Amino acid sequence: MYQRRKRLSIEEYVNGVLEGDKVVLSKAITLVESTLESDHIMAEQVLEKLLPHTGKSVRIGITGVPGVGKSTFIESFGKLITSMHKKLAVLAIDPSSQRSKGSILGDKTRMPNLSVDPMAYIRPSASGSSLGGVSTKTRETMLICEAAGYEVIFIETVGVGQSETTVKGMVDFFLLLMLAGAGDELQGIKKGIMEMADAIAITKADGDNRPKCERAKREYKNALHLFPPSESGWYPDVLTCSALESEGLTQVWEVIEKFTGEMKEKDYFMRNRQFQNVEWMHDIILYSLKQKFYSSTSIRQSIQALEKEVKSKKIPAISAARKLLHHYYNS
Amino acid sequence: MYQRRKRLSIEEYVNGVLEGDKVVLSKAITLVESTLESDHIMAEQVLEKLLPHTGKSVRIGITGVPGVGKSTFIESFGKLITSMHKKLAVLAIDPSSQRSKGSILGDKTRMPNLSVDPMAYIRPSASGSSLGGVSTKTRETMLICEAAGYEVIFIETVGVGQSETTVKGMVDFFLLLMLAGAGDELQGIKKGIMEMADAIAITKADGDNRPKCERAKREYKNALHLFPPSESGWYPDVLTCSALESEGLTQVWEVIEKFTGEMKEKDYFMRNRQFQNVEWMHDIILYSLKQKFYSSTSIRQSIQALEKEVKSKKIPAISAARKLLHHYYNS
Repeated sequence: MYQRRKRLSIEEYVNGVLEGDKVVLSKAITLVESTLESDHIMAEQVLEKLLPHTGKSVRIGITGVPGVGKSTFIESFGKLITSMHKKLAVLAIDPSSQRSKGSILGDKTRMPNLSVDPMAYIRPSASGSSLGGVSTKTRETMLICEAAGYEVIFIETVGVGQSETTVKGMVDFFLLLMLAGAGDELQGIKKGIMEMADAIAITKADGDNRPKCERAKREYKNALHLFPPSESGWYPDVLTCSALESEGLTQVWEVIEKFTGEMKEKDYFMRNRQFQNVEWMHDIILYSLKQKFYSSTSIRQSIQALEKEVKSKKIPAISAARKLLHHYYNS
Repeated sequence: MYQRRKRLSIEEYVNGVLEGDKVVLSKAITLVESTLESDHIMAEQVLEKLLPHTGKSVRIGITGVPGVGKSTFIESFGKLITSMHKKLAVLAIDPSSQRSKGSILGDKTRMPNLSVDPMAYIRPSASGSSLGGVSTKTRETMLICEAAGYEVIFIETVGVGQSETTVKGMVDFFLLLMLAGAGDELQGIKKGIMEMADAIAITKADGDNRPKCERAKREYKNALHLFPPSESGWYPDVLTCSALESEGLTQVWEVIEKFTGEMKEKDYFMRNRQFQNVEWMHDIILYSLKQKFYSSTSIRQSIQALEKEVKSKKIPAISAARKLLHHYYNS
């Protein structure tokens, strides 16, 4: 199955991506995801050349616990977007499994129509080294997709881990999918995720479930108004939808358009993106500093014992930290 | 005004603190807050000797925007606690101002009764080097107060900055003070803080304001039930109170007792504290790694130019990050 990767030249990568060639696009993403030092340099040169062609998409984070009907939603919502003649890229992040080659098959089953749609491009995000569960390269993958002419980007996460905070930092709009009812369904969602949502879409609003969904919508609407608005001044909207019956999806898109319209008008849209760019730089730095520290031999040898001593209150946390830092800087 | 600090011996610090001597307690905190390398070593030895005597308090984070009546609340609620023959320490964090000597006078005005109560100890947390706005030494100050026999610790923040996440990581119970109504009062509160609250107390529930507060209480109760419970399984409670008329304060204390009771029963209380201890170690490490990076000459010289290039999309964030890391590791 494994094919030796034929290396393209920088120009071939850049031109192929700009022409929207899906094969070259995939290769460029693989280059950016590579952990080889030699690939890093080339990847950066490719990225630098593509950079002026990025930024023209709407970046949408979509999250929801397993069972909420995320795949079905993305399939139907995605088809709606491509039917409007917009090119759509779906970047799927699944921190729980090592997705690589196999997952492409998985996506074909998950989203049978979207995965064969010439206007759509689906790419699972390689896990491995990660920033809060998100591949360190998801942001760069997004940029390459933009350069390839994709006008809408979905970044999909499962809503149970740390990924959402990182994803929130790279998208314009954060959409939370929820089931009706405040019972067991809630248990799966990580606290704090609801406050990040720009909109909540209550899924599976069809058949007998419809009244329950309408009630949930009203309740969430009231509830969210008691919470502080986000920095952008936007109050999250609540909608119901049925991917099965293709209902309510147009409304979700309209909310996203309303949001981007308002944000662009008050100049928040670009300011937020600039802020996110700079934050991303700092995130990578922090990630690298941590990585280097925690993977160094001197730390790996002593950290477990010290953690244990801190846990059992043998030494104060501050002493343990200083000991480790001392080891690190002197080795 | 400035008095040369007379240095005590380790034994004098330890014994003085254990005896509950407020003068020695204050000196021990000053030692721990010191930025002198020579003081660090001594401070750690003092802390290590005090450590077995720590942990017996209830640690309560109290936050609320200016205008919510925080000082009045702490004064009345604090007096209630000392009237139950419990020793109370109040650690006040104000990231907006450099509080040191002057603030002690400030606290005397803010809390006239509590500041002269022999059962209470009020200490402003020195700002300066900080972890998310919180003094890096607030946690250690809390430990020393516990060793000095304080059974209830308040850590007070203003609810508008980054401090709350850090404080959440060092307390057992997080209390949010709110005004009635979901209007302008909300604007000041940072998004995400409400989801951290174990209880919300709606203040100033007296006179004409009472019905409004009762309505707000019902609304918040309903709203919070739509949100996922915290990891502890606890659903936040909502109460009303009037510090002016000393009403509802007993109920706030009862909720805290109910919480600690339940958490101790399911063994969450101690597990959470162990987790917090270890997290604190990692927080200090991270803080130190960042501090060293961002204060190094090579970074300070180049970071602003690179940030600008990232902002204006001249180079990708990842390239800027790698450049800075390269400078850092090679200088």
